Amino acid sequence: METQEYKYRNGKPKNGRKYMPANFTEEQRQNIREKLITIGYELIREIGLKKMKVSVIAQQADIATGTFYHFFDSKEAYVQALIEEQDRKMQEALIPLLQNSGKITLEQAIRWFRDSFRTENNILMELTLEDWVWLKSHRTKDDMFSAAHGEQEAMKYLSYVEGVRPDLDVRIIINFFKTIYSMAQNRETFIPEVFETNIDMIFECIYRYAAIK
Amino acid sequence: METQEYKYRNGKPKNGRKYMPANFTEEQRQNIREKLITIGYELIREIGLKKMKVSVIAQQADIATGTFYHFFDSKEAYVQALIEEQDRKMQEALIPLLQNSGKITLEQAIRWFRDSFRTENNILMELTLEDWVWLKSHRTKDDMFSAAHGEQEAMKYLSYVEGVRPDLDVRIIINFFKTIYSMAQNRETFIPEVFETNIDMIFECIYRYAAIK
Repeated sequence: METQEYKYRNGKPKNGRKYMPANFTEEQRQNIREKLITIGYELIREIGLKKMKVSVIAQQADIATGTFYHFFDSKEAYVQALIEEQDRKMQEALIPLLQNSGKITLEQAIRWFRDSFRTENNILMELTLEDWVWLKSHRTKDDMFSAAHGEQEAMKYLSYVEGVRPDLDVRIIINFFKTIYSMAQNRETFIPEVFETNIDMIFECIYRYAAIK
Repeated sequence: METQEYKYRNGKPKNGRKYMPANFTEEQRQNIREKLITIGYELIREIGLKKMKVSVIAQQADIATGTFYHFFDSKEAYVQALIEEQDRKMQEALIPLLQNSGKITLEQAIRWFRDSFRTENNILMELTLEDWVWLKSHRTKDDMFSAAHGEQEAMKYLSYVEGVRPDLDVRIIINFFKTIYSMAQNRETFIPEVFETNIDMIFECIYRYAAIK
């Protein structure tokens, strides 16, 4: 393992990226992966997405830089995993809300969406403008930054919600979510004391629009 | 005049910036200034704020580049004048709304504010992200980009409005205006067909918040 790690220590391995050291058990792998994810959230909050280096992530997780690439192909893939992981957690929080019908009320849905834009649940809400620019230029797939994205996904979520007006234009909701990310991106220009109040009010606005009259 | 203009043609004059060619009457000056302002709005819409060059502005106004600096000290001062000019026009539109009491209703105020964020009245709504970055780094005075700005100005406007709840927190309103500029700044990521609807809804939200219950 020493030799192997040494080989990768100075950067991303060109070949054998999928090769897994025999001395990591599945449990160890799982632990390292979780550690890397936790460290990622911390580092983004501390030093930002752009400045976060793979070598520093690896160091904090007590692994060699080369070993990092056994878990993620690139920093981009890692960041993507961080975002997907928080999405997964939010989706888990949705499950206990589902009633026998497999549906949730509009009130619950709005509260759930609101929570998904809180800094403690959403690392994107803490990014600086510099980080957003990095993220936009390094995105690994179609995401929240493209105008086209989101309509299908939003419709999927909406199918679980009761009490929604039948003529709802989901594009309006999507644009409001983009609005909140735009606010986060310019956070330093906002009056901080009422920033969360503004987001609350946008959700009230969404609720009022989406509810059956 | 030929010699004079030639002297300035290749850039900003180092001295004598305040010197006014004797052959411009006050009326001519007024005409040129208006022309420059009109051209500015057109050029920002066509090629953007950052890419807009003083030499091009001057060319389109049929004056030498040096002559431009008899009207504005710099591109920054010119842009500032463009913004102030549109503010002045919006404020003119407010005057006929004032009743005998010197006040306007909240409905009128909201409609007026809404109008001030339409692209035809507000060049800022059409800036690209690149232009916003330019503007932020070249601002000549405290403006809409600083978190502190706006509270005093907003209070001034509010004093003309009837039917406002006494416990209104003006910071919420200011943050909503910043929200709209943030949306404009990221316009290319929004679903364009409902972009204006989202802004309408933010104003409905402001109205509902600001009105006496």
